Amino acid sequence: MNDRLARLQGLLEEPLLITNPVNVVYLVGFHSSNCALLVERDRVRLFTDFRYLQAARAVEHAETVQTKRNVIAELAETLTGRVGFEATAVSYANYELLQNGTLEPVATYGVVEQLRAVKDVGELDALRKACAITDRVFEQLIEVPFVGRTEREVAWDLVQLFHAEGGEGLAFESIVGSGPTGSRPHARAGDRTIGTGELVVIDTGTTIDGYASDYTRTFATGPLDGEAMEVYETVLQAQQAALDGIRAGVSGVAADALARRVIDESPFSGAMGHGLGHGLGLDVHEQPRLSTESSDVLVPGNVVTVEPGIYLDGKFGVRIEDDVVVTEDGIENLTGFRKDLVIVS
Amino acid sequence: MNDRLARLQGLLEEPLLITNPVNVVYLVGFHSSNCALLVERDRVRLFTDFRYLQAARAVEHAETVQTKRNVIAELAETLTGRVGFEATAVSYANYELLQNGTLEPVATYGVVEQLRAVKDVGELDALRKACAITDRVFEQLIEVPFVGRTEREVAWDLVQLFHAEGGEGLAFESIVGSGPTGSRPHARAGDRTIGTGELVVIDTGTTIDGYASDYTRTFATGPLDGEAMEVYETVLQAQQAALDGIRAGVSGVAADALARRVIDESPFSGAMGHGLGHGLGLDVHEQPRLSTESSDVLVPGNVVTVEPGIYLDGKFGVRIEDDVVVTEDGIENLTGFRKDLVIVS
Repeated sequence: MNDRLARLQGLLEEPLLITNPVNVVYLVGFHSSNCALLVERDRVRLFTDFRYLQAARAVEHAETVQTKRNVIAELAETLTGRVGFEATAVSYANYELLQNGTLEPVATYGVVEQLRAVKDVGELDALRKACAITDRVFEQLIEVPFVGRTEREVAWDLVQLFHAEGGEGLAFESIVGSGPTGSRPHARAGDRTIGTGELVVIDTGTTIDGYASDYTRTFATGPLDGEAMEVYETVLQAQQAALDGIRAGVSGVAADALARRVIDESPFSGAMGHGLGHGLGLDVHEQPRLSTESSDVLVPGNVVTVEPGIYLDGKFGVRIEDDVVVTEDGIENLTGFRKDLVIVS
Repeated sequence: MNDRLARLQGLLEEPLLITNPVNVVYLVGFHSSNCALLVERDRVRLFTDFRYLQAARAVEHAETVQTKRNVIAELAETLTGRVGFEATAVSYANYELLQNGTLEPVATYGVVEQLRAVKDVGELDALRKACAITDRVFEQLIEVPFVGRTEREVAWDLVQLFHAEGGEGLAFESIVGSGPTGSRPHARAGDRTIGTGELVVIDTGTTIDGYASDYTRTFATGPLDGEAMEVYETVLQAQQAALDGIRAGVSGVAADALARRVIDESPFSGAMGHGLGHGLGLDVHEQPRLSTESSDVLVPGNVVTVEPGIYLDGKFGVRIEDDVVVTEDGIENLTGFRKDLVIVS
C-alpha cells in the first residue's frame, strides 16, 4: 500500500469518494478528467470509463471498475451506506444524483487537500527541479530586449525557454503585464508593444512530474521615475519582511500581515489588493493560504508563494514572488533568480 | 444590450447567478477564475475581486461590484429572494453557503449552455479560422518523419506549428499515441519512440478568440499489416456514414448509431468504446453530445466533432475526427485536411 493512501485511510470514518481529479493523481498517480476513487479502510477502487481503462488497470493499489460516461450517476445507483464525498469537488447537480441514489452521502471538506499541503521528499524534489528550471528561464529571458516587442511575443519566449530547459510545459498561462497592464494583477499577455522606461510584470512557471513553480519578477525597460523606483523598493522590502518572518506556527493571516504592514506604512497604503501567497504543488493554488481571509497555520513541509504587490490603477504594477518551503525555524527559498531591479531594454 | 444577454433575459423566471467562468466569457467577454454574473431582466451585475477589477470595469452592459476573495460567500450574505444558480457549476460546498444565506437558491440546469450550443455568425467565423489553422498545421506536421522521434517531440512540433500559424495556443494537451499507446483513446504524448510500420493517433487543436478546433488523424509510419489497414478503412467508412447522415433533427443517439453500426457490423464489433462526438466552442467538450447516452437533438448552428474510433487493446488504435456545423439539410465540414491513410515515415 502506498503511504499517501495509508495516511488517508487512517483518517477515514466512512468510505470516501474522491472526485477531485488532482486528488486522484496525488493518491494513485492516475490522470483522468472522468474518474472517481473510492477509498475504504481495507479496499481501494478506481472507477472510470472506457477511454481511460487501460491506464487505470496499470494503477497499483486500486481495483479498476469500468463505468459508463457518467461515473457519479452509476455510483449513485451502485454504492450503499454512508459514503463521504468531497464537498468542493462535487457539483450540486452530482450531489443531487448521490442524494437520490442508494447511498447516504456525507459532505467532507479538504481531507486530501490537508495531506497534500505537507510535501514529502519526492514532491519537494520535483518542486526544486521546477524552480531550478524557472531560474534558468528567467536568466535567459532577460538577455533579449523587451522594448518594441509585444507582451505576447515575450510570453512565447517563455514557452520556448521552458521547453528547452526540460519543463513539462507552462504551469499556467504566463502573465506579461507592461506599463498600465501591469496594474491589473491577473492581466494576460496581450498585443501591447512594450515601450521604454516601463515596468513589466512577468508571472510564470512550469511543472515537473506535475508539480508547479510560480515566480513573478518585475523588470524595467530603462530608467524609471522616482515613484516607480519607490514602489519597487517597497515591494522588495515587504517581501523580505515576509521571508524573514515566515516559519512553522505562523498563521496565514500573520504571514500576510508581515508584508502588508510594510506596504500600508508606505505612501502606497492599501495598494496590495491580494493576499500574500498560496500553497503550491500539483495545483498552482492550493492549501495553505496566506491572506487576510486565511484560517490556516503554517507547518513544516508547506510550500507557499510569497508575492506581495503594489498596483497603481492605470499606471503600473510591481509584484515579486518566490516559492518557499516552510521549515521549523524559517524557510528554504526555492527561488534563486535575482530580485534587484533589472533593466531589460 | 448585447444579443446573448437579451436572449438569456428572455428565458429567465428569476435572477440567474452565473458562476461557470466560460458562461461569463460567453455572455460579457470577461475572463476570470473568480467571478459571478447576476443577470436579472432589467439589470446585470458582475462581481469579482480586486485582481480582476480593472478588467471588469471595462465590460459593457454590466455594473461592476468588488467582492472579497470568496465571491459566493459574500453574495450569500447580500442577495435576497429567489436566485437561480448553475447546478453543474456550483460545488456542494458553495451550495451550502447559498442555502445558509439570505437568498433562496433555485437549481437551474444548462440554461446558458443551451444558448451556447447554437453558434452565431461571429462564433462560426472564429471556429472556421481555428480549423483553417489546424489544416495548415497538419499539412506541415507530416512533412517531418515521425520514426525515431518520441511522441513528446511530435507534440512539441504541434506547439510550434500552431504558434507559427497564429493559433492562440493549444485548445488542449495534444494526444500523440503511437503503436499500443494509440489503443488508449486518451493517452498523452509520452517518451515512447515511434517505430516503423506503426499507427500514430494525433488529436490536437487550437483556439481563435477562445473557440476551439479539435481534430484527430491517424497516420502510418510505413506499410501496415492487413488488420491495421482494415481497421483504418472501417473507421473511415464509419465516419463517412455519420457525416452523410447528420443534419438538424437527428438525435445524438441516432447520430452516434450511424457510425457505431458500421463498426459493429465489421470484425471489430464493440471496439468503439466512446461516443461519436461532442459540441465544440468555448469549451472543447460542450453541448450537444453524440453518444449512446445523449438526450440531445441536433439543430442548425450546432458545431460538433465526428470522431469514431476502433481500439485494439495493447495493439493500436485508429480515430478520425472532423469538426462540422449542423445545417437544416446536412453539415458544413470545417475540416479540410485529407483523411486517406498517409504514410509519414
